Amino acid sequence: MAESSEQKPDEPLIDITRLCAEQDKFARERDWEQFHSPKNLVMALTGEVGELSEIFQWMTEADSKNAGSDPATSQAVKDELADVLLYLVRLSSTLGVDLNEAVAQKLLKNARKYPAEKVKGKSKKYSDY
Amino acid sequence: MAESSEQKPDEPLIDITRLCAEQDKFARERDWEQFHSPKNLVMALTGEVGELSEIFQWMTEADSKNAGSDPATSQAVKDELADVLLYLVRLSSTLGVDLNEAVAQKLLKNARKYPAEKVKGKSKKYSDY
Amino acid sequence: MAESSEQKPDEPLIDITRLCAEQDKFARERDWEQFHSPKNLVMALTGEVGELSEIFQWMTEADSKNAGSDPATSQAVKDELADVLLYLVRLSSTLGVDLNEAVAQKLLKNARKYPAEKVKGKSKKYSDY
Amino acid sequence: MAESSEQKPDEPLIDITRLCAEQDKFARERDWEQFHSPKNLVMALTGEVGELSEIFQWMTEADSKNAGSDPATSQAVKDELADVLLYLVRLSSTLGVDLNEAVAQKLLKNARKYPAEKVKGKSKKYSDY
Repeated sequence: MAESSEQKPDEPLIDITRLCAEQDKFARERDWEQFHSPKNLVMALTGEVGELSEIFQWMTEADSKNAGSDPATSQAVKDELADVLLYLVRLSSTLGVDLNEAVAQKLLKNARKYPAEKVKGKSKKYSDY
Repeated sequence: MAESSEQKPDEPLIDITRLCAEQDKFARERDWEQFHSPKNLVMALTGEVGELSEIFQWMTEADSKNAGSDPATSQAVKDELADVLLYLVRLSSTLGVDLNEAVAQKLLKNARKYPAEKVKGKSKKYSDY
Repeated sequence: MAESSEQKPDEPLIDITRLCAEQDKFARERDWEQFHSPKNLVMALTGEVGELSEIFQWMTEADSKNAGSDPATSQAVKDELADVLLYLVRLSSTLGVDLNEAVAQKLLKNARKYPAEKVKGKSKKYSDY
Repeated sequence: MAESSEQKPDEPLIDITRLCAEQDKFARERDWEQFHSPKNLVMALTGEVGELSEIFQWMTEADSKNAGSDPATSQAVKDELADVLLYLVRLSSTLGVDLNEAVAQKLLKNARKYPAEKVKGKSKKYSDY
């Protein structure tokens, strides 16, 4: 697969072809397409991020780095990350957005917005937004 | 890359190898790894989903399906979807979670939890959670 | 209590004195003050808003207006609204923010930002943010 | 107004009468009632919690306790807390939910769910949800 050391410009940053196809099939077989408006999917995505947040809310930052050490927590984290990804991919699909293209554009914007020499070691402060 | 028409079981549902590598490099060059605890990244993900929600909050469901027709809205949507993906991938990376494996497991769980013949045409009601 | 028709400038828009006191006592009795940093409480608030979102995600707007007609949904909605309020009040308390003053300031800002004659019948478009 | 020192059982935990009236008037004058379905307001609430999250995302817990010390951050926090409250109160109003009653019920539930002697000094673990 892609080697970051020899990034050809036409190699995708992500490839979600198969997941997209699986999800389209899953929704179609259940006649769930009627519920999957972008507006509804944004709310579903919100719900999943909320569940992810609940897992981490009382952890210290240090604890959060070791979230994988407890099997139950680790499994819960994996499930929620997957749920976020599933709704994100489904949402992009219903909107006709090519996530690989969108993320490639955003990386370029971010590189211009945050030049390494200028922001090194500094987190964004609210006043900079 | 994966062909959905001949899904071999060992073909990935998603491939994010290159994006992961790009993000690791981006964070390292800016000395931002110190800020990227899973706890912090969950909050950053929340912020991006909030921005996505703001775009769709006053739209009807029908409007949301046409969010791509207005160029400014379309670009905003792409940017926010990319931001959600970026933080999701970075979060998974810091947690050492293989997103492809996590999503494959979740699809199997969902297939068992929602048998097509049983849930056809029905959205989940809150009382079923 | 306050009559909006004779709004004296010193009458509060909200009074949360008793709730604040109850929550301080609740946290103190459980030795939970150690977990209630503003950062953690923002994440807890996120979790509750996520649960609220899950209730409404597959509803049409019309359905959402009748969310009170099904007893189970109605009770779930009340519980989640209460949870959001509880964390919001607790968060404000730990930050030393006077919510009544904050909301009074914000109403003035909003009145200036959205003059009735200018925004009448128009929802904010994303490009206006 | 309520005196926390002599809590009569029929005294409200919160009183939002005036804020509710102000908001109803604000929406009516702008003909914004048409946009304020519960579904839409949940999304607007999500957006505001996302903005709150963005303020705190890179702060340590210790920093978050001192969020009031920087004037710009402090003002931003107040504005976002107010926005969350505004949408929460508006949402409850459109749903016909009495927030004071809802929160009183929830406090009783929480007291039963988390007996002080049992949960003292322990944060909820994910596996307990």
